[in-house]
Amino acid sequence: MIGVIATLKVQEGKNAEFEAIFTELAKQVRANEKGNLAYALTKSRTDPLIYKVLELYTDQDALTAHGQTEYFKAAGPKMGPCLGGRPEIEYLDGV
Amino acid sequence: MIGVIATLKVQEGKNAEFEAIFTELAKQVRANEKGNLAYALTKSRTDPLIYKVLELYTDQDALTAHGQTEYFKAAGPKMGPCLGGRPEIEYLDGV
Repeated sequence: MIGVIATLKVQEGKNAEFEAIFTELAKQVRANEKGNLAYALTKSRTDPLIYKVLELYTDQDALTAHGQTEYFKAAGPKMGPCLGGRPEIEYLDGV
Repeated sequence: MIGVIATLKVQEGKNAEFEAIFTELAKQVRANEKGNLAYALTKSRTDPLIYKVLELYTDQDALTAHGQTEYFKAAGPKMGPCLGGRPEIEYLDGV
């Protein structure tokens, strides 16, 4: 199993637009990726501009496949204008 | 939905003992808590003493119930001697 914590910072005033784009992406991930076990968009309780995506995959193949989907590749350019910096991605190994 | 990222630091030489205790806890959480959607123990790729638990709950009631289970309350004293400091717990609101 592999875990991912993706931290995304949005620009002020862009929360709703970002959430709409990301929610649509998450729906596609959950509907289409057998190897994805969780893909949960959450927001910080202390900084309203910070989101964290909690992701779980069965293995590296599943994570690689996720990054190669058309909808994932399309989501980057869509949400880019909402973001206030580069996403931070932390990869974690399941125990 | 509520997300939790629990960051746990273990003492050197305590990894195996910690993992055994936590894995047993995680099994009980997944087997007994309808409101728990994920409870994944992962370890850092950059610091071998750091673990992160990625947790998802349906709502606050489910998270509260988790903290009140006998096995959760019993796990603290068991894993305490393995830890190298207080756990850091981040609560996140599902979007």
